[in-house]
Amino acid sequence: MTNHLLNLAVIGCGRIGHIHAENLAARIPQARVAALADVVEDRTVQLAARFRIPKISRDYREILADPAIDAVAICSSTDMHSQIIQDAAAAGKHIFCEKPIDYDIGRIHASLAAVKRAGVKLQIGFNRRFDPSFARVRELVASGAVGRPHIIRITSRDPSPPPLDYIRVSGGIFLDMTIHDFDMVRFLSGSEAEEIYAVGDALVDPAISEAGDVDTAVVTIRLQNGVLATIDNSRKAVYGYDQRIEVFGSKGSASAGNRTPDAHLLLDAAGTRGPSPLNFFLERYAEAYVIEMRAFVEAVLKNQAPPVSGKDGLQPVLMGLAATRSLKENRPVKLSELS
Amino acid sequence: MTNHLLNLAVIGCGRIGHIHAENLAARIPQARVAALADVVEDRTVQLAARFRIPKISRDYREILADPAIDAVAICSSTDMHSQIIQDAAAAGKHIFCEKPIDYDIGRIHASLAAVKRAGVKLQIGFNRRFDPSFARVRELVASGAVGRPHIIRITSRDPSPPPLDYIRVSGGIFLDMTIHDFDMVRFLSGSEAEEIYAVGDALVDPAISEAGDVDTAVVTIRLQNGVLATIDNSRKAVYGYDQRIEVFGSKGSASAGNRTPDAHLLLDAAGTRGPSPLNFFLERYAEAYVIEMRAFVEAVLKNQAPPVSGKDGLQPVLMGLAATRSLKENRPVKLSELS
Amino acid sequence: MTNHLLNLAVIGCGRIGHIHAENLAARIPQARVAALADVVEDRTVQLAARFRIPKISRDYREILADPAIDAVAICSSTDMHSQIIQDAAAAGKHIFCEKPIDYDIGRIHASLAAVKRAGVKLQIGFNRRFDPSFARVRELVASGAVGRPHIIRITSRDPSPPPLDYIRVSGGIFLDMTIHDFDMVRFLSGSEAEEIYAVGDALVDPAISEAGDVDTAVVTIRLQNGVLATIDNSRKAVYGYDQRIEVFGSKGSASAGNRTPDAHLLLDAAGTRGPSPLNFFLERYAEAYVIEMRAFVEAVLKNQAPPVSGKDGLQPVLMGLAATRSLKENRPVKLSELS
Amino acid sequence: MTNHLLNLAVIGCGRIGHIHAENLAARIPQARVAALADVVEDRTVQLAARFRIPKISRDYREILADPAIDAVAICSSTDMHSQIIQDAAAAGKHIFCEKPIDYDIGRIHASLAAVKRAGVKLQIGFNRRFDPSFARVRELVASGAVGRPHIIRITSRDPSPPPLDYIRVSGGIFLDMTIHDFDMVRFLSGSEAEEIYAVGDALVDPAISEAGDVDTAVVTIRLQNGVLATIDNSRKAVYGYDQRIEVFGSKGSASAGNRTPDAHLLLDAAGTRGPSPLNFFLERYAEAYVIEMRAFVEAVLKNQAPPVSGKDGLQPVLMGLAATRSLKENRPVKLSELS
Repeated sequence: MTNHLLNLAVIGCGRIGHIHAENLAARIPQARVAALADVVEDRTVQLAARFRIPKISRDYREILADPAIDAVAICSSTDMHSQIIQDAAAAGKHIFCEKPIDYDIGRIHASLAAVKRAGVKLQIGFNRRFDPSFARVRELVASGAVGRPHIIRITSRDPSPPPLDYIRVSGGIFLDMTIHDFDMVRFLSGSEAEEIYAVGDALVDPAISEAGDVDTAVVTIRLQNGVLATIDNSRKAVYGYDQRIEVFGSKGSASAGNRTPDAHLLLDAAGTRGPSPLNFFLERYAEAYVIEMRAFVEAVLKNQAPPVSGKDGLQPVLMGLAATRSLKENRPVKLSELS
Repeated sequence: MTNHLLNLAVIGCGRIGHIHAENLAARIPQARVAALADVVEDRTVQLAARFRIPKISRDYREILADPAIDAVAICSSTDMHSQIIQDAAAAGKHIFCEKPIDYDIGRIHASLAAVKRAGVKLQIGFNRRFDPSFARVRELVASGAVGRPHIIRITSRDPSPPPLDYIRVSGGIFLDMTIHDFDMVRFLSGSEAEEIYAVGDALVDPAISEAGDVDTAVVTIRLQNGVLATIDNSRKAVYGYDQRIEVFGSKGSASAGNRTPDAHLLLDAAGTRGPSPLNFFLERYAEAYVIEMRAFVEAVLKNQAPPVSGKDGLQPVLMGLAATRSLKENRPVKLSELS
Repeated sequence: MTNHLLNLAVIGCGRIGHIHAENLAARIPQARVAALADVVEDRTVQLAARFRIPKISRDYREILADPAIDAVAICSSTDMHSQIIQDAAAAGKHIFCEKPIDYDIGRIHASLAAVKRAGVKLQIGFNRRFDPSFARVRELVASGAVGRPHIIRITSRDPSPPPLDYIRVSGGIFLDMTIHDFDMVRFLSGSEAEEIYAVGDALVDPAISEAGDVDTAVVTIRLQNGVLATIDNSRKAVYGYDQRIEVFGSKGSASAGNRTPDAHLLLDAAGTRGPSPLNFFLERYAEAYVIEMRAFVEAVLKNQAPPVSGKDGLQPVLMGLAATRSLKENRPVKLSELS
Repeated sequence: MTNHLLNLAVIGCGRIGHIHAENLAARIPQARVAALADVVEDRTVQLAARFRIPKISRDYREILADPAIDAVAICSSTDMHSQIIQDAAAAGKHIFCEKPIDYDIGRIHASLAAVKRAGVKLQIGFNRRFDPSFARVRELVASGAVGRPHIIRITSRDPSPPPLDYIRVSGGIFLDMTIHDFDMVRFLSGSEAEEIYAVGDALVDPAISEAGDVDTAVVTIRLQNGVLATIDNSRKAVYGYDQRIEVFGSKGSASAGNRTPDAHLLLDAAGTRGPSPLNFFLERYAEAYVIEMRAFVEAVLKNQAPPVSGKDGLQPVLMGLAATRSLKENRPVKLSELS
């Protein structure tokens, strides 16, 4: 690391690892991708060739041993996050880690403790905070433009459910999908959840119910600062990826709608037609992934606190656990019950 | 009543009575306003002069005794609704009655029984069903355009709270304000509520809390057909009257946004600006009031069932009572607990 | 006429006369429709019955002789406007007259001279000035919100062409249809046309060409204050009545789009769909007709200058004649060439 | 060049050359940037370092001599385009050249002749054709969705005028700025201009008039297929880069509006506010530049005709010359007068 150039390794080069590697290599001039690690060698070989990345490995420990590497982006499967964080911290590397840190609160605490001990920086990959529309709403709230917030509304719907095999190990909709919305509620409100009530059902596909999960949910959150938040989720919006937020307060309402691939409009005898929302999270959040990673690189280079902290990694998991319990017991659950 | 002309009396000529009288006199050619009744004589005198209405009275019973009158529009204060319905039914008049019939379930049942006994028609004034945007969404749902409904979202916010004196006798936010949204959930879903969970707080004005009510609320409803509905309410949206609905289902999403007084747009160095939502329910629902009353007049003239029935008057009150109990006890309340 | 109540007669009770009569009778409390005149008796009989209008006649001169009548709304066919204006002025009646006064400049001047001689008020029916969206844009321009205006854009398209018989006597598209847009250019810019260039063709229907007219046109206007204006017209927009304006200037752009019958949105697998523009000028300008007539009534009652003057009736006809000549000779034509 | 990898050199590494080099290096996997040329060495050195480009030169001829290079992207100043095209063609390189080829018709013809002789491919950089919104409108027109086109409307306004020094040598607004809109009219209509009428003035800055140019213009074009097109231009839209198009035809209207940096909305007591249009052509057309260059790379690799031909480079210049003459002589000018 010089004052102005950060050497990173990307650990895990699946879909999201590929995106972070490409963004670091091509869109963030202050970053240099010095190494790639993945147990599937094909992934690293091709990526390294295209962006002339000098080092690849099937074992991330080999990468961590390289003193030329300043920081790592952990993009492995979730069950490896906690271990790699602890190893990377021990090796003195700064860490960007995809969300969630883990579904187990104990392992999250172990990871955060390791990071603290090592004195390295940690940023969690809650990419939506960096979406220009959502960031703008947060800025408006922070600037006082909506006054004191009273209500937060989030609509968050996927274009189609993941495979059943994935659902079975996903931790359930609240830890897998709503977790982003829980983070958004915290981000927008600047407050912590006090009590959560969740209802849900398998309306999209009964097989999801057999897999022990729901695919449609409505969650109510009472926050410590008095804000009432409501989230609606579906695993299947046939018209695309539907991501909308609103913060309503004493002085007004700030909201952000969906983005579309183009801005056309067709008026004919049948009515008015326009584009669908962007269909996929990688399209909708393409910019957000670049801005997020740029923020991490800058935080390390300037020795500042990263914009998404370890606590930001912990709290949404607690909220997910509370929602899961609320759904099961059909009653509001206090966050304080979990500790 | 001839085949094509209905003689109506308007009972109660305050704000909403005035509107119905004007619509009947000037915008519904099949109707004739034959009489006005109000204990405040000023109200009837002026209105009668302007639209050349031949008969006024301070006592609605005098009106009911007139055999030339076919139907009445009851626009008195809520505490009189039940009595006037029963008197009008006994007099053989068809009845349009403003919502709610009553806050007391017993008196509602007594009213409905009187109507049934008399064999007259009864339509309850849930005007929002006749709003062209909301009606269009209902049509789309009924036509199958959104497939099987999964989620209903309603945002319903008033521009400013009513006086505290009114709040004290209003029955609480769920019976006074959310009642419209409860009706909308039934209208849009074509199903009945099974269980309701409500959270709320006095975030707008602590005096509302002292008056025993809340001014901000989020309500979750589980319907018998599986739909999950969420309503957010505020007594004070500084930017105007905010009335939005969405029905999301297996094939898509149908929604309706706010209307504005004009369609201008100003782009300057400070950004893009447009009109606020219409500020007042009388403006937003001006068309709805005309269409609603035309539907009543036609139902009577054609001897058809009115589009909003006595049961439609009862169910939202039950939902409001369930929400009120849920808020008090902080738990989901089944509608079946109320009977 | 008292200080607060104006007695009007409507002369000509076809489509537009009917609208003005209904608005005066039911929506403008300061007005009283005292008489109706039309050579077709059926029109006046029904209208008079519905709104209890005391006097009808087949001869407008009979109406003009009635001293109880303060003002007239002239809604006859265009070829009668000039004569009725002169007769009404001679009878001392204030005059609202539908546009255009006449297609003949000489007869317009004779009408304006008669009005001036008699000292009565005259308002010309350029209803679009009273459309809330267009009026808002004019307000923004007048307030300086767009700075010095540079460009005015108008799109003005009808849902379908009038009958060929009408087209043959209409005076041509520029005098029949674009005349409203010429008025709008003057209204928005606060300036007069200096030079006009028009192109046009019969792209909708070749029979319109055989009838000596065009159905599609683009008109460029250079105004005395330097503004460049462009208007596009079509006789047939299959998606509805398309009426849009924009004023672009040194500080920004103010525009007004179309209105729709509702505010629904449907998202499904096929895309996003919304309502068409209102399909008919009577729907789009329903509010404008009320506001326009209210303005006339108030101008007379308060003894103020009506908001649309005789000169406002003359200038767009001159612009239409210049455009007609420009189309024929395929060259820019100065307004000064016409005098 | 292999079947799947194209070696390109970028000649001229100023603003637009930089963008093309970055897109080729990082966003188009089938391309390899093999060399950079610019008389200003700093530009090539930094760019080469960042993307590890193996060869740089101050003399483009050196690059053309390299047999490993398959194609060039000419991004030099306009006055060099024609010479470099002829040299590159002689060297057997495929050519992407920024618009315009030249302002001199003779030099354009010489360039096109050289390309034809050499049998290399040539694509002209009319980037807007690749904007997803504009491309979508063209697709809708081509698919028949609007029927037979009748009217094309283009609004094209820059956020601020270029320096006066640039304006003096720019060839005038019609060759420098409107040229893009002329291309768009051809692209959207699939037809050629027959006659053009232009009005214009220096309303933004009188110094532009002293420099012999106008900054505000309205252009009317009559196309060979009967379409009437109208373009309005301004050098200064304070609210951002304003780029809108509409094709209106017998079956409907297809249009494309501006894009914004985000999708937020703020409603407060002062009204409704949203984001400004993207402020700069590099932001608005960022995607278009990538898609355009990808199309060139694919055309060469697949031995297909590039989507923007040499003729597409010539015609808008002719239209610009016709508009320039029309402005000077204040009369419609036929394209046929220019040959």
